Amino acid sequence: MELPSKSLERAVQALSRLPGIGRRSALRLALHMLRQGSDRILDLSEALEELATNSQFCQKCHAISDQALCGICQDERRDLRSLCVVEDIRDVLALENTHAHRGRYHVLGGLISPMDGMGPSDLTVEDLVQRVTDEGIEEVILALSATMEGDTTAFYIYRKLGDLPIRLTAIARGLPVGDALEFADEVTLSRSFQQRVPFESTLNR
Amino acid sequence: MELPSKSLERAVQALSRLPGIGRRSALRLALHMLRQGSDRILDLSEALEELATNSQFCQKCHAISDQALCGICQDERRDLRSLCVVEDIRDVLALENTHAHRGRYHVLGGLISPMDGMGPSDLTVEDLVQRVTDEGIEEVILALSATMEGDTTAFYIYRKLGDLPIRLTAIARGLPVGDALEFADEVTLSRSFQQRVPFESTLNR
Repeated sequence: MELPSKSLERAVQALSRLPGIGRRSALRLALHMLRQGSDRILDLSEALEELATNSQFCQKCHAISDQALCGICQDERRDLRSLCVVEDIRDVLALENTHAHRGRYHVLGGLISPMDGMGPSDLTVEDLVQRVTDEGIEEVILALSATMEGDTTAFYIYRKLGDLPIRLTAIARGLPVGDALEFADEVTLSRSFQQRVPFESTLNR
Repeated sequence: MELPSKSLERAVQALSRLPGIGRRSALRLALHMLRQGSDRILDLSEALEELATNSQFCQKCHAISDQALCGICQDERRDLRSLCVVEDIRDVLALENTHAHRGRYHVLGGLISPMDGMGPSDLTVEDLVQRVTDEGIEEVILALSATMEGDTTAFYIYRKLGDLPIRLTAIARGLPVGDALEFADEVTLSRSFQQRVPFESTLNR
């Protein structure tokens, strides 16, 4: 279907390039915005322009930041020997909420996913190798999604870091807290069984 | 969760004002755009700015248009006596695809929906009454969604047009073509039965 207005058509095309938004949804969004008035549209337009021009990546960990170095990388109380590797800033926020990690982060900016056109060179793995060498890192913790893309990326990093004198660990895969064992899928259950831990270590939480 | 970048925070807030997009989705969209590069973000930003400044509503039917009068309202071969009332431009496009309507349209710009803060004064009903009087319309066809909002709006228009010497019709509610009768819901089936038509009229398609 051809839209009767060129500016509407252009906006719909630009919106439908976003992930998970097809042409129909894009048209719905554009019409909703038009109903809300042009102020709202201009507000979003300006916010995006600001995002494109002002946002930058932390020179060290590659998280999005307003400064050259992000708050975490500037924080000197952080454990400098421990580096947690994550996909993007959402994972940093999720982990920070748990207070489980006292070291710094390294944001890859994605996962290896040939289907989405993401290869190793699109990630910040070279920088990670450099950091591990330069900063005297002792432990690299892989905190990636438990998906095929996450596993592929983890293996790639494992190969890249293989020769360096560090401890390379990965966050545990297992039964989610609160889940009934009978409903867990086979792969999770099997991993959970293989990677069993001394019971005493589960007590000191 | 507080975002570490102000421009990211602003973009996420603006995006999450769109219908169906929560804070999590907005962050996902913003991060996706950042990965794609700032050119893509600026493209969307400019498209939205153009939409806000250039798009206008057809003076006659209130559809979105690049000119003062939309293509359909400018088309003199259209039947001037028949006016089809729809919610928005998507419905115009859907009906145009069927080639079933030879007259013009009147776009309400929404439906009465107190839950969404849409009252009768937010719609172009006053203009519709004016058009029906001024343009010598003979038939007004209500082509609104078969929802509570659609029915409420249809009844409101019926009350507003009540005294005018026109034929007011509504598109039929019934069994969708291709659907099995046993799976139709009760209300649809009951409407479909009550509004049965002479069999012969179904033959000349």
